[in-house]
Amino acid sequence: MRPDNQLRPVEIQLGYLAHHPANVLYRSGNTMVLCTASVEPSVPPWMAGKGKGWVTAEYNMLPGSTVPRKSRERSKVDGRTTEIQRLIGRSLRAVVDLNALGERSIVVDCDVLQADGGTRTASITGGFIALAKAIQNELPDATIGQGPLRDSIAAISVGVVAGAVKLDLDYELDYAADVDMNVVMTGSGRFVEIQGTGEEATFDDDQLSAMIAMARHGISELTQLQRDLLG
Amino acid sequence: MRPDNQLRPVEIQLGYLAHHPANVLYRSGNTMVLCTASVEPSVPPWMAGKGKGWVTAEYNMLPGSTVPRKSRERSKVDGRTTEIQRLIGRSLRAVVDLNALGERSIVVDCDVLQADGGTRTASITGGFIALAKAIQNELPDATIGQGPLRDSIAAISVGVVAGAVKLDLDYELDYAADVDMNVVMTGSGRFVEIQGTGEEATFDDDQLSAMIAMARHGISELTQLQRDLLG
Amino acid sequence: MRPDNQLRPVEIQLGYLAHHPANVLYRSGNTMVLCTASVEPSVPPWMAGKGKGWVTAEYNMLPGSTVPRKSRERSKVDGRTTEIQRLIGRSLRAVVDLNALGERSIVVDCDVLQADGGTRTASITGGFIALAKAIQNELPDATIGQGPLRDSIAAISVGVVAGAVKLDLDYELDYAADVDMNVVMTGSGRFVEIQGTGEEATFDDDQLSAMIAMARHGISELTQLQRDLLG
Amino acid sequence: MRPDNQLRPVEIQLGYLAHHPANVLYRSGNTMVLCTASVEPSVPPWMAGKGKGWVTAEYNMLPGSTVPRKSRERSKVDGRTTEIQRLIGRSLRAVVDLNALGERSIVVDCDVLQADGGTRTASITGGFIALAKAIQNELPDATIGQGPLRDSIAAISVGVVAGAVKLDLDYELDYAADVDMNVVMTGSGRFVEIQGTGEEATFDDDQLSAMIAMARHGISELTQLQRDLLG
Amino acid sequence: MRPDNQLRPVEIQLGYLAHHPANVLYRSGNTMVLCTASVEPSVPPWMAGKGKGWVTAEYNMLPGSTVPRKSRERSKVDGRTTEIQRLIGRSLRAVVDLNALGERSIVVDCDVLQADGGTRTASITGGFIALAKAIQNELPDATIGQGPLRDSIAAISVGVVAGAVKLDLDYELDYAADVDMNVVMTGSGRFVEIQGTGEEATFDDDQLSAMIAMARHGISELTQLQRDLLG
Amino acid sequence: MRPDNQLRPVEIQLGYLAHHPANVLYRSGNTMVLCTASVEPSVPPWMAGKGKGWVTAEYNMLPGSTVPRKSRERSKVDGRTTEIQRLIGRSLRAVVDLNALGERSIVVDCDVLQADGGTRTASITGGFIALAKAIQNELPDATIGQGPLRDSIAAISVGVVAGAVKLDLDYELDYAADVDMNVVMTGSGRFVEIQGTGEEATFDDDQLSAMIAMARHGISELTQLQRDLLG
Repeated sequence: MRPDNQLRPVEIQLGYLAHHPANVLYRSGNTMVLCTASVEPSVPPWMAGKGKGWVTAEYNMLPGSTVPRKSRERSKVDGRTTEIQRLIGRSLRAVVDLNALGERSIVVDCDVLQADGGTRTASITGGFIALAKAIQNELPDATIGQGPLRDSIAAISVGVVAGAVKLDLDYELDYAADVDMNVVMTGSGRFVEIQGTGEEATFDDDQLSAMIAMARHGISELTQLQRDLLG
Repeated sequence: MRPDNQLRPVEIQLGYLAHHPANVLYRSGNTMVLCTASVEPSVPPWMAGKGKGWVTAEYNMLPGSTVPRKSRERSKVDGRTTEIQRLIGRSLRAVVDLNALGERSIVVDCDVLQADGGTRTASITGGFIALAKAIQNELPDATIGQGPLRDSIAAISVGVVAGAVKLDLDYELDYAADVDMNVVMTGSGRFVEIQGTGEEATFDDDQLSAMIAMARHGISELTQLQRDLLG
Repeated sequence: MRPDNQLRPVEIQLGYLAHHPANVLYRSGNTMVLCTASVEPSVPPWMAGKGKGWVTAEYNMLPGSTVPRKSRERSKVDGRTTEIQRLIGRSLRAVVDLNALGERSIVVDCDVLQADGGTRTASITGGFIALAKAIQNELPDATIGQGPLRDSIAAISVGVVAGAVKLDLDYELDYAADVDMNVVMTGSGRFVEIQGTGEEATFDDDQLSAMIAMARHGISELTQLQRDLLG
Repeated sequence: MRPDNQLRPVEIQLGYLAHHPANVLYRSGNTMVLCTASVEPSVPPWMAGKGKGWVTAEYNMLPGSTVPRKSRERSKVDGRTTEIQRLIGRSLRAVVDLNALGERSIVVDCDVLQADGGTRTASITGGFIALAKAIQNELPDATIGQGPLRDSIAAISVGVVAGAVKLDLDYELDYAADVDMNVVMTGSGRFVEIQGTGEEATFDDDQLSAMIAMARHGISELTQLQRDLLG
Repeated sequence: MRPDNQLRPVEIQLGYLAHHPANVLYRSGNTMVLCTASVEPSVPPWMAGKGKGWVTAEYNMLPGSTVPRKSRERSKVDGRTTEIQRLIGRSLRAVVDLNALGERSIVVDCDVLQADGGTRTASITGGFIALAKAIQNELPDATIGQGPLRDSIAAISVGVVAGAVKLDLDYELDYAADVDMNVVMTGSGRFVEIQGTGEEATFDDDQLSAMIAMARHGISELTQLQRDLLG
Repeated sequence: MRPDNQLRPVEIQLGYLAHHPANVLYRSGNTMVLCTASVEPSVPPWMAGKGKGWVTAEYNMLPGSTVPRKSRERSKVDGRTTEIQRLIGRSLRAVVDLNALGERSIVVDCDVLQADGGTRTASITGGFIALAKAIQNELPDATIGQGPLRDSIAAISVGVVAGAVKLDLDYELDYAADVDMNVVMTGSGRFVEIQGTGEEATFDDDQLSAMIAMARHGISELTQLQRDLLG
């Protein structure tokens, strides 16, 4: 059994698809997310002509990513999906200097091939790698900290399960959790986003502090993996 | 000028509408939200026959609530609205014992007549009052702590503006803020939801602690107002 | 009991919202409609470049405006709403000189806070006041009869209930009515629109004449109230 | 040139389609509307189990019915279409005894093959014939005045063009008209619906009376044609 | 009884509608399709400025074209309709030289008034006539083989019914068929499209050859009718 | 360079996803399709209570499957997608005995991870394997030819490129092709579906025969691969 403060095994396959120039298959335990960062040479109409770029994200679960099957969102996007892809987009933009990016758009698509908890945080952590790759394709001198990428970004979930604080909830833990929190931090250790929720439970200051500390610990490991991969 | 840790003046008009049995016009400074809690004698199909009730929320800004005019969401609901109404619904459900409610649904509608920052937290704080009133209409013996209402709930925003932590951001402060956090707490002082975001900025542990403390202080005042009103 | 040919008490609160520059809360008995007239510095694409302006209207009932709750129209607008807002728009345009307005658009939003019959006619009568205010904000020399406003406009319902012709139907009368007619007239006493319907009943020439005469009488009172308020 | 008070030539082809049991091709001058009345052995869910029937209408213009081409309404139905089909449905229901019809639905489809003014009134007049035929197929003893059909119904347009009151406006007259009025009457000469509009003009009591009288005259001719055809 | 290799009687009424400049009512047995080809002086945005034209098609069945009634496609177009109108458009474009057409669009609308099998092939055969007429209105020197029309085009269905290959399936035959194939050919006898399907059956090489040969025979007759009509 | 009559290398990974009970990752050259067959214990309402089962398919291309990025179909499904998923569903049903399947539904989802031509035929060939696996999970005695699976099914594309008939078109060949044909056949060598199209070209009998023969050859190889895998 995995200790409370240990991440699931992470496996990151950069260039899983032969054709797409900036893609990564990100696995965290049995969660599998295919992230592609596609560049378009223009920005949305409301941003045009300012010399600034744009980064946005879309999130989707494939029907076979869950059992029972998840219906496709083909006539409208449901609330959960909307919330998640807004979170991913905000998180990625937090470390991008849009002026340095120049007037181009990058869409980071996060398609969940298999869902076993933590798909939104996997999308952020994996999506950052695809994004960094796409930026390097466009601006070969860019590195983390130089050019459009002001910092790296990663995310993890943490929660309270049967009274104990636990890191990186898989589906089974998430289902059992009283409190579920997603934390997004930069590589330099600053918060970008904290979302903690107790749908049918509540939490106190001590639990909050313990969750925050454990998330910080997990994110520092993910940051290291990202930096090893991106150089 | 309002001190950093002071709420805007709150005015709560219970029974603003003559016909609707559970409505409140909630004002926080210039923000005005009309909250109505409507009871239906059935639950959604996926809950039927379990003897449990359901509470949900809808949020909407009137076109004239902002200048320039806000377009109506008539063919699809936008991402921000979806996110907000899901937050309101989750927050209200956190203090409702759905089993004690019995097989009935309550829809809490939060319509923003005038928007000047903090509409989602005003919707939670005001929506709770309408919800409590609706429950008392159905179950006259219910009080906070007895019957379906396990506790009260209130919410406030807090943020970092020009380096300083500030309570209850109006539109102008919100626009200037580097970090924006919404905190939802029960009357007994436990967290239900924390959502902190720095779209183009980040924050550290000290700022997080300061924001949490200030929110706790503001919410305790709102809790008092709610209890005075509901008895 | 109100005599057959008497209006319900009308209360008009100009500037109910502190922020919006052209708004009115219009009450006719228990019917409450919030009307805002928002100016945009452009016209729809099919009108651009002709130097003419445009006036349009949107109508909406808040979910809590009726008991039981009225569902929001968030994926499509229903037929009744469409019909009503087209009527409001046509009626308002009948007294506006679009050439004198100049190339700007005015959207008159009529949001029903509480519905007790006559919401469409209240929207026209109250909407005109908001519209006039918006025009005066843009073109300070405009008065009724000079500038874009060629005349004032007001509307009232009339019907046949249990054989008797009655003015200004509230919900209870409307429900009981065999015939329901909405009449829109200018301040100078000319017809702009007449819509008379007997869904499961019919009417004859005498009833038609009596309804028209009674509507004319009611509208002249509303015209007086409008002129008192607008100067 | 056609006199002011004369109808365009009307041609009614009952059973134009070989397969459909209740259809009519209705021509009024160059306006051509194909009306079919289709019976379904059930009623909408909200009416089920009351032993009552239901009659509704749908209206549509074919793309080639106008030059330039009219776009199809395939993602949403526009306001004008909604308004017209509601009018047709209400008008037809005004002469149907839904209790006598029994628990079945009749949908009257009015598809405009060629549009030259007066398509909504042609739809009512022709739609009634298809409806009567469908009812007679179901209840062979039904005649006008006996069984579900309490009376016949017909409609015509009338207007003010260059100061003169004119009957049965074709497209050219309609385009030139200051006032446009549609009148729906029963075979026995009672009003069912009056809709008079002056989008950029107004009208007075004398014009109203003249229009009403002329419409009554035209409808009595249409009633005769209907009765000749239906026996 | 019609022999296996004989077409149903075809009747083509060019100029059925008085107003539309390029329309045809095409009957094949009891199948009736009204085809109109409407010209617009522009092309879709993605084609603009290349000097090329565009041809597209829309297909629709009227509600009364079948018994029981076919619902209108007013919120979304169903899969069968989409498939058919794409086939019609591709087929017509196969014989049009879009460069010679010049920067204009032609929309060929195929509205089925009565459906008795073979509506998609009737739409292609009849739609070609309307298209040719529209092109001749624009470019009076155009003939089949000169100008935009490189060739004529026609289509027919063929199938296997109770083991026998049959030409031109009406509804009854189509319902009984094990295999259903639609063949589209040019006037000069070359294939444009072959679509053969056995939903719950299969077919072999000999049946394929026999169906192809019979379709070729039927199409040559339709080609002759088209050429007689268009000169 | 690949000979005209040779398939691209095929790689089939059964059980690529750890959690889903019936999934296959199907690769044909650089085309990658993830197929999952999900079983639901009920059938659509219109089939309920007949003891028969149902098989349907959904097709989707991931945004990163092409460069440039393909937009998601989130408000409506486009015509090409509709056409393809209808073809997949029909093809799979052609070899399933729905009575033997019993009252359950199987949805075969075909999600294209990377698109390099032939995605619809890969979806059919791979989708059959997932379907067979799902059926064997439900009915362990089922084999091809015994139980619900009456036969196997596979598909391939074939075309005319620069005058030569070629098997299994990748994107580059497909783009260059004058004629494109998709052929679906059973394992026993009978046709289920033939769809041949020349959008801006045509073809003759000899080319048709050559394409059919080559497709038959390719499908026999795919059938062998399927049978090796499924036993």
